[in-house]
Amino acid sequence: MARRTGRRPGNPDTREAILGAARAAFAERGFDAASIRSIAQAAGVDPALVHHYFGSKDQLFLAAMNAPLDPGALLPAVLAGAPDGLGERLVRTFLGVWDSPAGAAAVALLRSAVSNEWTARLLREFVVTQVLRRVLDHLDVDPAELPLRGSLVATQLIGLATTRYVLRLEPVASAPPETLVAALAPTVQRYLFGDLG
Amino acid sequence: MARRTGRRPGNPDTREAILGAARAAFAERGFDAASIRSIAQAAGVDPALVHHYFGSKDQLFLAAMNAPLDPGALLPAVLAGAPDGLGERLVRTFLGVWDSPAGAAAVALLRSAVSNEWTARLLREFVVTQVLRRVLDHLDVDPAELPLRGSLVATQLIGLATTRYVLRLEPVASAPPETLVAALAPTVQRYLFGDLG
Repeated sequence: MARRTGRRPGNPDTREAILGAARAAFAERGFDAASIRSIAQAAGVDPALVHHYFGSKDQLFLAAMNAPLDPGALLPAVLAGAPDGLGERLVRTFLGVWDSPAGAAAVALLRSAVSNEWTARLLREFVVTQVLRRVLDHLDVDPAELPLRGSLVATQLIGLATTRYVLRLEPVASAPPETLVAALAPTVQRYLFGDLG
Repeated sequence: MARRTGRRPGNPDTREAILGAARAAFAERGFDAASIRSIAQAAGVDPALVHHYFGSKDQLFLAAMNAPLDPGALLPAVLAGAPDGLGERLVRTFLGVWDSPAGAAAVALLRSAVSNEWTARLLREFVVTQVLRRVLDHLDVDPAELPLRGSLVATQLIGLATTRYVLRLEPVASAPPETLVAALAPTVQRYLFGDLG
């Protein structure tokens, strides 16, 4: 039986060259400043080929950092409901991802980000541009407060992931998701909309 | 000039043998089940020598995991005040440690715990036996709820450390400590004493 190659479009060497250039660009210059054009140039290919292989810049970024999921596909449902339930829906969706088969890849990404500055930058860009930006664009609060509110939410959710899935501190490690949703939702809700003291 | 050796008591090889046996025992069996007697036996020394070199079991544990500080020395002042300010004092003291010269060692320990299961177990034992147990012994709430309350506090404080010092997500990474104390104290206070939903 012949050895099968990947089903993704394109020459694997070219794909890898583009992904390597993308990782470097996103980590060094950040998501917003890294252009498809400059990534294509660094990889020695035409920008149209990058679009052809990976689609949008968001999708290239997700591929470059081996993201276990696309927040752009998950978040619309979270953001669609009433604002007073947003914290609860965010915590429930977050736990749903980490408790799913995608969770193992998420744990691997978090471990890598904590031990490696390069991956840390990519994860930071992911949290800001793929998750927080989409959530914060949606809030009817003082725009000057949005960055702090977003990063406070990140402290609670990243801490939940680290404690439950990496350090496995009990009883949080084994608690039913709804126990954690009930306990953490008011925290996330306050960071998004409430008084920050 | 003669090369100076360490000023700590005892033969360095014996010290290292004890510390290695202690790390193994604390990681494999946990703090409570690991006895000084069994650690001494594994290291091939008399238990009295372990006490002579390291003092108490708590102090041996702190030495074995290279703890950057002794919560037993810090926490009495935090716990001495009024209960309604405990969350605030905990967050302020936590930030004080991580923002101090000891913070670099704390970051190293967190990085190691996230990437290494062995260190993760030691950090878990540290959080539970050296920090949470002391805090929870002090709370006048339903004892059955204490483990969940303690580990919820851990999600917020470990998340703060990971986000501020390791991932360095802005603006949490550069925020003045008092901004973070004001924002996070009500969270920690609710996890300790409040309604968990």
